[in-house]
Amino acid sequence: MKRDDKSYKGIGVFDSGIGGLTVVRALMERLPEENIVYFGDSARVPYGTKSPETVLRFARENLKFLKSRNIKLIVVACNTVSAVALPVLKAEEKLPVTGVLLPGALSASKTTESGKIAVIGTTATIHSGAYEEALHAINQDLEIFSQACPLFVSLAEEGWLNNDVTRLTARKYLEPVIEFGADTLVLGCTHYPLLREVISEVMGKGVELVDSANECAIEVEKILEKNNLRKMTGDTGEIRVFMSDVPYKFKEIGERFLGRSLGEVTKIQI
Amino acid sequence: MKRDDKSYKGIGVFDSGIGGLTVVRALMERLPEENIVYFGDSARVPYGTKSPETVLRFARENLKFLKSRNIKLIVVACNTVSAVALPVLKAEEKLPVTGVLLPGALSASKTTESGKIAVIGTTATIHSGAYEEALHAINQDLEIFSQACPLFVSLAEEGWLNNDVTRLTARKYLEPVIEFGADTLVLGCTHYPLLREVISEVMGKGVELVDSANECAIEVEKILEKNNLRKMTGDTGEIRVFMSDVPYKFKEIGERFLGRSLGEVTKIQI
Repeated sequence: MKRDDKSYKGIGVFDSGIGGLTVVRALMERLPEENIVYFGDSARVPYGTKSPETVLRFARENLKFLKSRNIKLIVVACNTVSAVALPVLKAEEKLPVTGVLLPGALSASKTTESGKIAVIGTTATIHSGAYEEALHAINQDLEIFSQACPLFVSLAEEGWLNNDVTRLTARKYLEPVIEFGADTLVLGCTHYPLLREVISEVMGKGVELVDSANECAIEVEKILEKNNLRKMTGDTGEIRVFMSDVPYKFKEIGERFLGRSLGEVTKIQI
Repeated sequence: MKRDDKSYKGIGVFDSGIGGLTVVRALMERLPEENIVYFGDSARVPYGTKSPETVLRFARENLKFLKSRNIKLIVVACNTVSAVALPVLKAEEKLPVTGVLLPGALSASKTTESGKIAVIGTTATIHSGAYEEALHAINQDLEIFSQACPLFVSLAEEGWLNNDVTRLTARKYLEPVIEFGADTLVLGCTHYPLLREVISEVMGKGVELVDSANECAIEVEKILEKNNLRKMTGDTGEIRVFMSDVPYKFKEIGERFLGRSLGEVTKIQI
């Protein structure tokens, strides 16, 4: 099949900070030949405590930056932006745009046996009701319970991935979730997979935790195929990381998310 | 004494978010006749986890906004900005500029009897070493111990002012502080006074907690006097609040900081 030059362009990925690197990790595993351009808005992180209008404004600015970097597709690797701004971004943008919310919902709907699904995320994500909407669009009969867990982001960024404070916080947030009795829990924020061990321990056996990263990579592969955009040369793709701030301890935390060395990080003002 | 028109201008106060309203509260108590213009950069909060360069850039932008609002004096009601950017802001600005760091240090130096002072604050504040510098400038012989407590900001914003998670977090952060054996603890972040009860309980009797708000109001009064800028008409001043984002639960949290109704809040884009 003949591929045009466009296929050599990168996959543009953005997040409010470094949580989206978990999505980059899944993309690198599934599509190792693809070039990836990552932008993390670490100067304005977090998004999940802010208003939908502000989140939309930031998302537009991030997207504009990525478009200046020779990309062929945009991945919104942030649940908050996916929840409150994705329809607007899709309507405004000519390039294909995909988020992490629908992949997470799809993954959960495939996992559940009882039809009872719980979703945890930031305040903005949970208040948007976007997960309920996506899950009910997939299957009207699903029973859904949502819970905001705002402190999980700070705990992940502090590196308190599995200590007594994190466990106690998880117990507090997850008590009503346990009461609801789901068999599937959606980790509806890209930071949360870092706390998987504690969340899993608190939820107990019999509850599957799903995140969006792998399903999102599958979705990206489909879009590339459909639009004839896959890079077919076998050499390993390049990852370029841009951040709006490079704070103290950034590399250490970023590499925890990416699961490998970050390479060079370029700071840009947005 | 004859006062010129300038005295009717407002006192401009800014912070990364709403923590600085604790300073506004102290100003209102000490200088009830003064008009106050507050700007909280809630769209980009928190500052304390970000790099000094980014904090300086944000501070300059906030200051520029305040200057468009007819003010006579600028109060940097944010410890992080006071710690990493105040000398630059002062050098660049014609209006008098004052911060919360020196007032906090002064208050601590007056309080201590043993000469052993501990300081807690954000990562950026503690890493700047600005409190040690200010305290040693006041008295070379003071012994100082500093500890970053980054999660305290998120706990205060979540409204977990006195629960078991907050207590456990405080014990973790404050253990080395207790070991150091100070008789005075500086709450070096405008969010921390909200957690005063828990911090005090964990530190135990015999440790005085000091914050900057009251000393800062005293300093502002002195600057106004010295520059002939006090508003002398007896009517109560007006408080105007501007924020770069007005997120969910904002009013509830803001009023917790201010200790009274917030009135109208204007959202501005910065």
